[in-house]
Formats: sequence, C-alpha cells, structure tokens
Amino acid sequence: MAKYYHTIEGEFSMKKGVLFSPQIAYETWGALNSSRDNAVLVFTGLSPSAHIASSVEDNSPGWWEDMVGPGKPIDTRQYYVICVNSLGSCFGSTGAASLNPKTGQVYRLEFPQLCIEDIAKSSAEVIHALNINSLYATVGASMGGMTALAFCILYPDLSRSLVSISSAARALPFAIALRSLQREIIREDPDWKNGLYPLDAPPASGMRLARKLGMISYRSASEWETRFGRERASNTSDEENTGPFQSSFEIESYLEHQARTFIGKFDTNCYLYLSQAMDLFDSADFGGCLEQAFSRLKISRAKIIGVTTDILFPIQQQIELSEHLEKVVKKVSFDCLKSEQGHDSFLVDMDRFRPVISSFFAN
Amino acid sequence: MAKYYHTIEGEFSMKKGVLFSPQIAYETWGALNSSRDNAVLVFTGLSPSAHIASSVEDNSPGWWEDMVGPGKPIDTRQYYVICVNSLGSCFGSTGAASLNPKTGQVYRLEFPQLCIEDIAKSSAEVIHALNINSLYATVGASMGGMTALAFCILYPDLSRSLVSISSAARALPFAIALRSLQREIIREDPDWKNGLYPLDAPPASGMRLARKLGMISYRSASEWETRFGRERASNTSDEENTGPFQSSFEIESYLEHQARTFIGKFDTNCYLYLSQAMDLFDSADFGGCLEQAFSRLKISRAKIIGVTTDILFPIQQQIELSEHLEKVVKKVSFDCLKSEQGHDSFLVDMDRFRPVISSFFAN
Repeated sequence: MAKYYHTIEGEFSMKKGVLFSPQIAYETWGALNSSRDNAVLVFTGLSPSAHIASSVEDNSPGWWEDMVGPGKPIDTRQYYVICVNSLGSCFGSTGAASLNPKTGQVYRLEFPQLCIEDIAKSSAEVIHALNINSLYATVGASMGGMTALAFCILYPDLSRSLVSISSAARALPFAIALRSLQREIIREDPDWKNGLYPLDAPPASGMRLARKLGMISYRSASEWETRFGRERASNTSDEENTGPFQSSFEIESYLEHQARTFIGKFDTNCYLYLSQAMDLFDSADFGGCLEQAFSRLKISRAKIIGVTTDILFPIQQQIELSEHLEKVVKKVSFDCLKSEQGHDSFLVDMDRFRPVISSFFAN
Repeated sequence: MAKYYHTIEGEFSMKKGVLFSPQIAYETWGALNSSRDNAVLVFTGLSPSAHIASSVEDNSPGWWEDMVGPGKPIDTRQYYVICVNSLGSCFGSTGAASLNPKTGQVYRLEFPQLCIEDIAKSSAEVIHALNINSLYATVGASMGGMTALAFCILYPDLSRSLVSISSAARALPFAIALRSLQREIIREDPDWKNGLYPLDAPPASGMRLARKLGMISYRSASEWETRFGRERASNTSDEENTGPFQSSFEIESYLEHQARTFIGKFDTNCYLYLSQAMDLFDSADFGGCLEQAFSRLKISRAKIIGVTTDILFPIQQQIELSEHLEKVVKKVSFDCLKSEQGHDSFLVDMDRFRPVISSFFAN
C-alpha cells in the first residue's frame, strides 16, 4: 500500500501548544534503496493532500502528476518519494477538523496555534519512523517551500539538499495582508459561527469569497489579459454570476467556477490555521536573523525556483533566499522562470518547470 | 461662492437609462479669463468629492491640496479649475443615494446602470452652462482618467489637452476581478439587504472588507515591506485586530484603520455603481477599436503619467494609452514614475508628481 498514517505516540510539543497522539497522513512512490538514502520528501502548499501523483492503489491524478512517477522529472524508479499531508490540514493528518482524543470532540478552535515548524517537526517523526537518516532532497512549493526550509534548518543532518519553489524565507506584509483579509472574510460570514459551524454546512459564502481572493493572488494580470481579455461569459445561465453589479465578464465566471469547486473540499478552520501559519513564518526566528538561521544548514545543494509574475512570493524573495543560501551552501542554483501563470505556475507551466526539476534530480 | 450645483433640466439620457433633472456638484478655484479659455476640468477617482483644494469658503484640505492653488503646479492665479463630483457619487451629485424626483424615494437600485461616459456627459453640461467652449486641459487620475479620456473623445472640440494619471483606455481582467470581488463582498453582507439598508446603518462589514481589498490594490508590496516589514502593532488595545487568526502585524492594523475611516463616508450603493462603471469602461466602444476611438480626438497635447509599482492600472496600460495617443495627437509626453506607493502615488508622492504636473501647466 502506498497510503499511510503515522501516529506520533504521546504528547507532541508544538511551537505554541501540545497535541496528544496526532496522526500524519502520507503517501509514497517508488522504493527505498538498501542504504535507505534515496528518499525525497515533498511538502505541499496550503491546500493539496499528500496525493502528489497517481499510484496503483489510487489512480486519480495527483496534484503534481506530471512531475512524479516512473521516467518523470522526480523519477520513482530512482527515488523513494514521500509526500506528507501537513499537520493542521484535513486530508488524513490531525487538524482542527479532527477529533481531540482528550475530549472526544472535534478540535475546532481548541487546536493550538499552528506554525510551519510544527508541520516540519511532525513530518520528521514520519522520516524517523521510516528509519531514514539521510534524505536525498527535501522539496516544497509555496507554503511547502517554507516547510522544507524549516525542516532543513531544524534537522540539519536529515536532508542532503533543498528544492524551494515559489516560496520565501519569511512572509512579507503584502502577502500577509491578502491572507489576513481572506481569513477575516471567512470570519465575517455569519455561518462560520466562531468556528462552530456544522461540518456539513461550512461558511460557503466566506470560503467562496476567500478563494476568489486567493485565485487573484495565485495567477497573474498578464495571463488573464491574454486568456480572458474583456470577453463576456457565453454561459449566462449560471445564475450566480448575474446578480446586481456583476457583469458576466469571463474573468468573473472563471473565479466563480474556481471558488465553487473549492467549497466543501477543504475544512474552513483548517484553512484558517494553515493560512495564519504562513503569515507567522519567519526563518529569522531560528537565531534572530536570516544569517544565523541559515548558518545552521548542512545541505550541500539547493535549488531555488521563482516566477517573474508571482505577486504572492515575488521574485525578490527568491533572490533573497538564494543570496542567503549562497553564503552557506556549496552549490546553489537559482532559476528565474518567465511563466505567465504567477504563483500557480509550478502547477501548470510544466514546459518550464519540468526541465528545471529534471536537471536537479538527474544529478 | 466656489461650491456649485448644476441641475440638468428635464430628461438626461445615459448610456443605459434615463435620469430626470440630475444635479452635478462642482467646485471652482481661480477666475475665468475674458476669453473664457483658461479652464482646467478635473475628474476624480472613485471616492473623492469635488473638493480638490481648500478655498476661502471651505478651508478644509482638498484631496489634491498640494497640486491646486495659487503658485501650485495647477496655478489658480492662471487657471480656472473646475472639479466635478461624478454623477453616481454621493457628494452633491445625483446618485443611488439621491431622491428620485419621479417617486420621491431614494433611487437605490432603481438608479440606472452607470457608465463612465455618463459622468463625462453630465460634466459637459456643466461646462456648457458655464459658457466655456474651450478648456485648457481635462485632467483625471484613476477612474477620473477614464472619464477625462471619454470626455475628450465625446467632445473633441471642448478640450485642448488631456492629462491622464494612473488610468487606462479600458479595464482589464485583473482589475475587474478585484473590483468584482469587492462588490460581491459587499453584496454578501446581510446588512446590504439588496441595496435597501437604512442609510444610517450601511453594510459596515462588507464595506470594511472591500476597502481593505481596495487598499491592497492601491498601494504596493515594496512600499509595505519598507514601511511595515514584519512589525507587530504596538497598540494591541485595538480590539478589532485581535480576533482569532489575526496576528496584529502592523500591516493588519494599518488596513483596519484605513477601512474604518472609510465606513460611513461613502454610500454603499453609490460605491457599487461607480465600481462597476470602471469595469464596463472600454474606450474601444467608441467605434469598435482603440484606433477608431482615438481617431476622434482633437486635443493637441496629452500627458500620460504612470507608476511602475501600480498593480491596478499597470504601467503597460500607460504605455498602451501613450502609443495610441501618439498616432493622433501632436504632442504626447509619457512619464513613468518610480514611486513606491503604487496606484495611490498621485495622492502621496508629491515630490515626483509635482514637477511633472508643473511642467505641463507651465507651458
């Protein structure tokens, strides 16, 4: 089987709280070699599950289907790929939507404040349980890149390299403003009920609006100009888009569709916890400044990939990351990609990402 | 007196409806010369009133106080400055918050769909009433730049020049997405009551959230990084910022403060009408394409000013505007300013804007 659940026995200390016997869901592809040193650990962005690619057991396409598999850039004939569902998420790992074993109730807002470091730490438990002492690489995009960086800083001996994609060493105010507003939009939905919404009746309006704001920050103005321009939606039977003060531009229909497919797929409180964890992340917390934090690293290689049209994790943050890594890591390569799809490019612009990821893992 | 109200007698045909005897509020500074050709008409962005500068009658600071007055870049010793409160707004001009003379009731959503062209057309009535046949210049920033462009296309003989600041020839999907989402956030506030909210109890939550999204689009990531970084707010007594999933970063406090000062100052329905008018604007509507539209112009000079950090009216749109103007206007100058404050720069970065505006009006 390729889908696993690891239970961390007893008390698990978080940065700002304690959980009792939390569970971490993960999936694996490929096989561990005899020296147990060919594993690649992948951390996800805020919303995906651990299902990075299809498998014999679950043939539904994964969120990075083009990138992981036999003969693909992260070749599962060579590497043992482990993708973790983040602590705090809702796809098998313990989060605000899980039962608190101490009370028998769903955690909801009793879940402790979540930090990126907690996701890294709980994942390290999985790696230890697998009896792996040296990972070939730790990989992450977006929030996953923050987690991958935290992991490499917290466990300097555990990974030999780092791949950070459209991520950052810390959250900056423009991104914080967007995420803080998304969370406030959700909290202002009366159906949120201070986190006590029935699990089958989440605050749909707040989630829909927050997701639309997310999409605005995940893509790029230039992509949308090319793709939608000022076209009007052909399907005006979609009543949601014909309310007063909506104009049925294609871009409005697109956002509506994207937002509706998200509702019900992700628990609202889990979303709020993970979103805030990104705002709180600052790798300078390890020692007081970025220099101190990065001096703990023992990786020998790092690849930083950024996209020029990304407004959420802008290219300046990729440069910052690269420059700090170059001071302490032997081999650092930085790829500045001209993808049009903004922050989401790593999920869609495979023609640009495939060769870059390939070259790293072909070594 | 420098504050006036012009009533357009009888039926006023809009692009998509009819108003009966609408009123346009405007303010003036300086004096009309004997040939009545030294007037400068200024259109505002979405939210300001006609009070562009202080005057003897109203000494409160105007929204462009540094730019208009004796000895200032638009020198009121030389020019007769007219600033119009847009049709559809709520500072003296007829809008959704005004009484419908036909029914004696507040218009609310009975107000016809508003277009930028309607603002231009109603303002032309003011200029005609003042017996002005040739304006020195028509000036506008943001939405006001769209209105100024529409005005010069609709009334080719009425203005000798155009100054367009951080504006555009048409709305593109990224800006449409942001504004459409702002409107939807407001409509989803139960207190909006389909536009029937008591005028003294507007949908405060929706307006607050929409204003925050507005601020995110009006400023720039680089400004906020310099200004706020990851600082936490010192004043944590401000309860609004300490709800769950808010982290009291300075940027969060700033947005909260900005949003709260906006509520109650601007009628919600008027905001919705003006916001949608911007989305609908496409100067290609005059003749089918931009080339056709711009071929109607008879201005002899144009100045286009844009800001590199503007994400709402990006610099590419300023270039588009300049390039199309260059084909038909004798003298076009384009200033690409490196202000850090994004779309709002024209309101705050006076050190960069003052010389550029000065040089145009010194000629």
